[in-house]
Amino acid sequence: MDVLVSEVGPRDGLQSISRTMPTTAKQRWVRALAAAGLREIEVGSFVHPKLLPQMADAAEVVRDAIQIPGLTVLALAPNMKGVMRAVEAGTRKITMPVSASHLHSLANIRMSCDEAIEEVARVCAWRDSLPEAQRPEIEIGISTAFGCTIQGVVEEDWVFTMAARLARAGADSIGLSDGVGYANPAQVKRMFTRLRAELGERAGGAHLHNTRGQGLANVAAALEAGVTTFDSSQGGIGGCPYSPGATGNIVTEDLVWMLEAMGLDTGIDLDLLAEARRVLAEGLPGEALYGYLPDVGTEKGFRYARRGEAPEGTGRARGSAACQPADSVAAAG
Amino acid sequence: MDVLVSEVGPRDGLQSISRTMPTTAKQRWVRALAAAGLREIEVGSFVHPKLLPQMADAAEVVRDAIQIPGLTVLALAPNMKGVMRAVEAGTRKITMPVSASHLHSLANIRMSCDEAIEEVARVCAWRDSLPEAQRPEIEIGISTAFGCTIQGVVEEDWVFTMAARLARAGADSIGLSDGVGYANPAQVKRMFTRLRAELGERAGGAHLHNTRGQGLANVAAALEAGVTTFDSSQGGIGGCPYSPGATGNIVTEDLVWMLEAMGLDTGIDLDLLAEARRVLAEGLPGEALYGYLPDVGTEKGFRYARRGEAPEGTGRARGSAACQPADSVAAAG
Repeated sequence: MDVLVSEVGPRDGLQSISRTMPTTAKQRWVRALAAAGLREIEVGSFVHPKLLPQMADAAEVVRDAIQIPGLTVLALAPNMKGVMRAVEAGTRKITMPVSASHLHSLANIRMSCDEAIEEVARVCAWRDSLPEAQRPEIEIGISTAFGCTIQGVVEEDWVFTMAARLARAGADSIGLSDGVGYANPAQVKRMFTRLRAELGERAGGAHLHNTRGQGLANVAAALEAGVTTFDSSQGGIGGCPYSPGATGNIVTEDLVWMLEAMGLDTGIDLDLLAEARRVLAEGLPGEALYGYLPDVGTEKGFRYARRGEAPEGTGRARGSAACQPADSVAAAG
Repeated sequence: MDVLVSEVGPRDGLQSISRTMPTTAKQRWVRALAAAGLREIEVGSFVHPKLLPQMADAAEVVRDAIQIPGLTVLALAPNMKGVMRAVEAGTRKITMPVSASHLHSLANIRMSCDEAIEEVARVCAWRDSLPEAQRPEIEIGISTAFGCTIQGVVEEDWVFTMAARLARAGADSIGLSDGVGYANPAQVKRMFTRLRAELGERAGGAHLHNTRGQGLANVAAALEAGVTTFDSSQGGIGGCPYSPGATGNIVTEDLVWMLEAMGLDTGIDLDLLAEARRVLAEGLPGEALYGYLPDVGTEKGFRYARRGEAPEGTGRARGSAACQPADSVAAAG
């Protein structure tokens, strides 16, 4: 596997939708995603159920998901209390959101940036006190790293100051997150290059959104910087309500196609991913699902990076039935 | 100006729509695009009007457009006859579609690849015989350069063999075209790097589609290879009928935003571009227009690359009113 596609739909996607997906539907979806070859899935968020009722069953979803062989089960927890609940449910990898924007940090987790870093330090100290078998990996996504809807521009130097402090606090990996879809490819390449130079093995992955259609462009830029872990959500669920076409997270289906077409093995099967999309659609009837590949299919001649095989079923080439070339003159001669 | 955005909507977009935009509406749209800062516009196609009735007024549109100061007026012509008509109308830059796929070449222009190259040679010889003031620049877009809906895989070596032969035939610039939306960023970077190495100053720009959502990712990849000219169409008109969300060409609005956000000056004003979009919508009432930026607006803190200014009106930041960050936990503390 060349690139790890980390599916965040069951957490990031579902928490952005007002409806709550039934617990059994979540479990079915997670199992279908794992069957398609996803090796890491963020299955829920350990926050107070009054704030995010969609995530109230996080412990149940975790308990089911950790039974799936070979799957890394991730959960989000914003503070010590959430981390303790996540660990109790059996989570062994936890992502903590820390915001580089002071105003967003206060609005989102009621902590200043400094307080959030201190919370991470406390969490890591507690983690180190646990028996090895229960000890979770702590992953940080520095949110608003590329800009903030409240504050606007976020100073890049401050992002790296935070990243260094978070590494010293004991976080295992520190990635950069663009949950608002502000990032552009030049910025993504520059910042991930610097992150990897400054943090080495603790440099984490990219959490990118597609608010301005730039999600996959930012993936291409992050690949240039050497990033090998990308968050995405199936069907791009949880899109921006102010932009009908704008997905939330980058769409897993489109991301997997692009990576495989580029010759980068993801270990994911597009036909089984299409099957997981049907499971998702059954669990959230009528909810808008996004993505280009599910409509268009792979191009004629597509081959998986590793296997050198074409998809069998739903993911297969439909290019020959599709659009005319742009410069079609339909036999002008 | 760091990057030339070459607007192809009035040709590539309109010819992909079954309805015909009235000539005066085309002229208004071209003028609005030029007013927004577009420096090059492909305004029509000189093919037989029975084949593409939407382009039957190409000469009239050219005659109006060449009055606009500072605008490079491009037209497509597939053969000598079309080139002669284009020159007669006053066109001084002509793009000829030459396909790298043998099957597509036969289907599209009823010529084999070899015959198409010979036609370019004849056109260039005729061009050289003209008085200097009438002599058009001949630009080639090698279509299906990244794959073909009929043939599937197209051999890369063959694309560069063709490019070299087209340069020897007298073409001023030879670009690569992905009118079917097959290209991926690795391929785009590799092929444009080679094109520039082999053709030097005759290496042309990128014509990219967004069929699988990868259009801007391929722009980012082409920028890595040093490409500085990109085709796009306002509103992404002429989308693929098999994929409701899939635009045809990459969307000018999204492209301009991304380039400017990356610090690359396009000379284009987003507010005036939004005005041109209204002119387009008036000329084609009810036609689907695509793009993320027109819905979402620029991000808070956006500045133009050159001017360091924020947009005034419709292009301005609407980020603060838009989506919550992805890792929103809404004050989980």
